[in-house]
Amino acid sequence: MPRGEGRRFDFDVEASPEAGPAVPIPDTRTRILAVSLALFNARGLGRVTTAEIAAAAGIREGNLQYHFPRKSGLVEAVFAAFEAEALAVAGRMPADPAAPEALLGYQRAWFDLIWRYRCIYRDGIAMVDIAPALRPRIHALRAETQALARGVFEAAVRAGRLRIAPEALGRLIDNAWIVSSHWMNHRLQGGTTLTEADLDWGFAQLRDLFAPYLAPDSPD
Amino acid sequence: MPRGEGRRFDFDVEASPEAGPAVPIPDTRTRILAVSLALFNARGLGRVTTAEIAAAAGIREGNLQYHFPRKSGLVEAVFAAFEAEALAVAGRMPADPAAPEALLGYQRAWFDLIWRYRCIYRDGIAMVDIAPALRPRIHALRAETQALARGVFEAAVRAGRLRIAPEALGRLIDNAWIVSSHWMNHRLQGGTTLTEADLDWGFAQLRDLFAPYLAPDSPD
Repeated sequence: MPRGEGRRFDFDVEASPEAGPAVPIPDTRTRILAVSLALFNARGLGRVTTAEIAAAAGIREGNLQYHFPRKSGLVEAVFAAFEAEALAVAGRMPADPAAPEALLGYQRAWFDLIWRYRCIYRDGIAMVDIAPALRPRIHALRAETQALARGVFEAAVRAGRLRIAPEALGRLIDNAWIVSSHWMNHRLQGGTTLTEADLDWGFAQLRDLFAPYLAPDSPD
Repeated sequence: MPRGEGRRFDFDVEASPEAGPAVPIPDTRTRILAVSLALFNARGLGRVTTAEIAAAAGIREGNLQYHFPRKSGLVEAVFAAFEAEALAVAGRMPADPAAPEALLGYQRAWFDLIWRYRCIYRDGIAMVDIAPALRPRIHALRAETQALARGVFEAAVRAGRLRIAPEALGRLIDNAWIVSSHWMNHRLQGGTTLTEADLDWGFAQLRDLFAPYLAPDSPD
């Protein structure tokens, strides 16, 4: 195993062993958002109260309200974080689109993002009920990320990695979008608990959509 | 164009030209259900009021309430009609599973059913809000129809029409289920209006899932 493997998701700060002020403590707002996302993922975006978030973040409710006067603002901030990451992940063109693992890595990054923000996909209806202002942003983000993904897949076609006619590529992207967005609710059948095993299940569903169109790997 | 083309959805009664008692008038309950389904499909299951249904059926609200004291009962009756048809369609094994059009015809019948009852798919959340008693029936129906569909696809594999490994068949059926159930909301992006052009769009999405696994048609 190459050195550094297994810690590729660490932050830069963890690589600096010095004690003291080099290790930043996340500010309260950042901590509130991280705690909120964890609770929303675990228990459902519509079910978690601001009192529970304050308690889990170890702050008073008054302090939470100082940062986020209403739950809608908190939900909007979680969505904004997702929005920024989604645009980055969707537009991250693989360095070599012809490489055997290029598309798989791209899809996995998108899928991992969906998993980290699974409350947004699983509880989408509750989300726009709480924060109706998000509706146009959801649609805009969807259009932007789909256009970015299309660019990546078209590069894979040009590189000979994906063998598919242009009109079928559009349908493949739409099917991938539908399956990526709805596999959780399909898997849940009304509950709210998902585990890493479900994540593997969902990714296998996505992978199979592309499998028939992947160019076979060269033998060497 | 063969004689009778374009009227294949007519009821038998239209083929009997005699005037008089041979032409049955649908009973009030049947008429209420047909009108309800049409309004639910057109305007959204959660948006249509019982007053509007009574007006569209040409009856007094008191008469509607005699048949369906609450909207939940009306929604349950619409679901019961869907339930009966879904079990019939899902279990209708093609006469010759090896025939080129066998699977396509089977899928189209299922897809047309989804379209005729599109309010159930498009407004599923509103449906269980209005009639929570449907929740276990939805899950039971899903399990039954999935098992029936699996039987039909396994027959197509045995007949050499579908070329796919057993574990990939399970994923294909799940993907087909996810796409069939969610293409409408994907297409709508929050609105409620769908046209026949959307129906064609959705069916092309479903067809493409199976296309890579279909055995090529024999040349004669």
